[in-house]
Amino acid sequence: MDRRSFVIVLLITAVAMVAGAVATVISASAQVDADAAPIYGIKIPPGYRDWRLISVNHLAGGNVKQVRAQLGNDIATKAFQEGQFPFPDGTIIAALHWNEALSDENNAVLATGFPGAGLQSFVAGAAVNVQFMVKDSKQYAATGGWGFADFTSGKPGNEALHKTCFPCHEPAKARDYVFTRYAR
Amino acid sequence: MDRRSFVIVLLITAVAMVAGAVATVISASAQVDADAAPIYGIKIPPGYRDWRLISVNHLAGGNVKQVRAQLGNDIATKAFQEGQFPFPDGTIIAALHWNEALSDENNAVLATGFPGAGLQSFVAGAAVNVQFMVKDSKQYAATGGWGFADFTSGKPGNEALHKTCFPCHEPAKARDYVFTRYAR
Repeated sequence: MDRRSFVIVLLITAVAMVAGAVATVISASAQVDADAAPIYGIKIPPGYRDWRLISVNHLAGGNVKQVRAQLGNDIATKAFQEGQFPFPDGTIIAALHWNEALSDENNAVLATGFPGAGLQSFVAGAAVNVQFMVKDSKQYAATGGWGFADFTSGKPGNEALHKTCFPCHEPAKARDYVFTRYAR
Repeated sequence: MDRRSFVIVLLITAVAMVAGAVATVISASAQVDADAAPIYGIKIPPGYRDWRLISVNHLAGGNVKQVRAQLGNDIATKAFQEGQFPFPDGTIIAALHWNEALSDENNAVLATGFPGAGLQSFVAGAAVNVQFMVKDSKQYAATGGWGFADFTSGKPGNEALHKTCFPCHEPAKARDYVFTRYAR
């Protein structure tokens, strides 16, 4: 091999190595992104199902019938309990949404007339989605200090969906963009 | 004072002391009972509002419209998560009931058409009552191992109310008298 050929081989090898490294980085990045919500890069916080209860509600209209719970990490719970606005950095609120299901077991008892005849109980059926609001006043300065994430069956929704989060929460600006109030 | 008079005074003093002691005990007992549910003697467990979420539901019919949450202490939560029957002694399940309230704030946003036109959000309004089921297979052997308690504004309901608890839960005998299932 002459010197010119050697340099060419060296260059090809170097380019291949760089390309390989870049491919590895891109691949790793893609793997990370698959679990993270677009725009905000938020992943499902470990252990959120064991967080404390902020409130419950249900949603009804058309084909939508859901029972819902909002949970908070320790920072969120303390802020809710103390009525702290704005919420401090580190606050995470989780919103768990289930399709409501009629409970035959419950209704058989309710039909007996106690505590009231004609009552029906609507319980949590299949999970619909789980949403998170993460407070980081620097990272998410453009969206009121909040990052948003929506997961269905553990997978984040697409970018179009996530673009709707902040506009929807903007009317609650006076309460730091949070609709939920602590249920006492 | 002759010996007979002295003995009489001594007896009167002793009776007065015993009566005083008895009165103190009765008074203390009455104070305790005012905070405890009749029949089962259960008081509101400290810190229950911070227990973990088991499930949510809502109840509707006639004039009753409630949103509800069931919380569990650590023993209860573990048993629910692992599908453990019967529930171990020490299990306490709390059922929190609120009158549902329409949320103008939420509905103003829902009216804009996202996530769906015509949706309405029913949130937790005024608290109705809080109920507890306490598992102690020895103390409450006569009622399936469960003690029951119902509190409104921190005060226990009367004996007649508490006599309805176990009969109402009996149809759920196959699930250790517990209607609620863990919401995943």
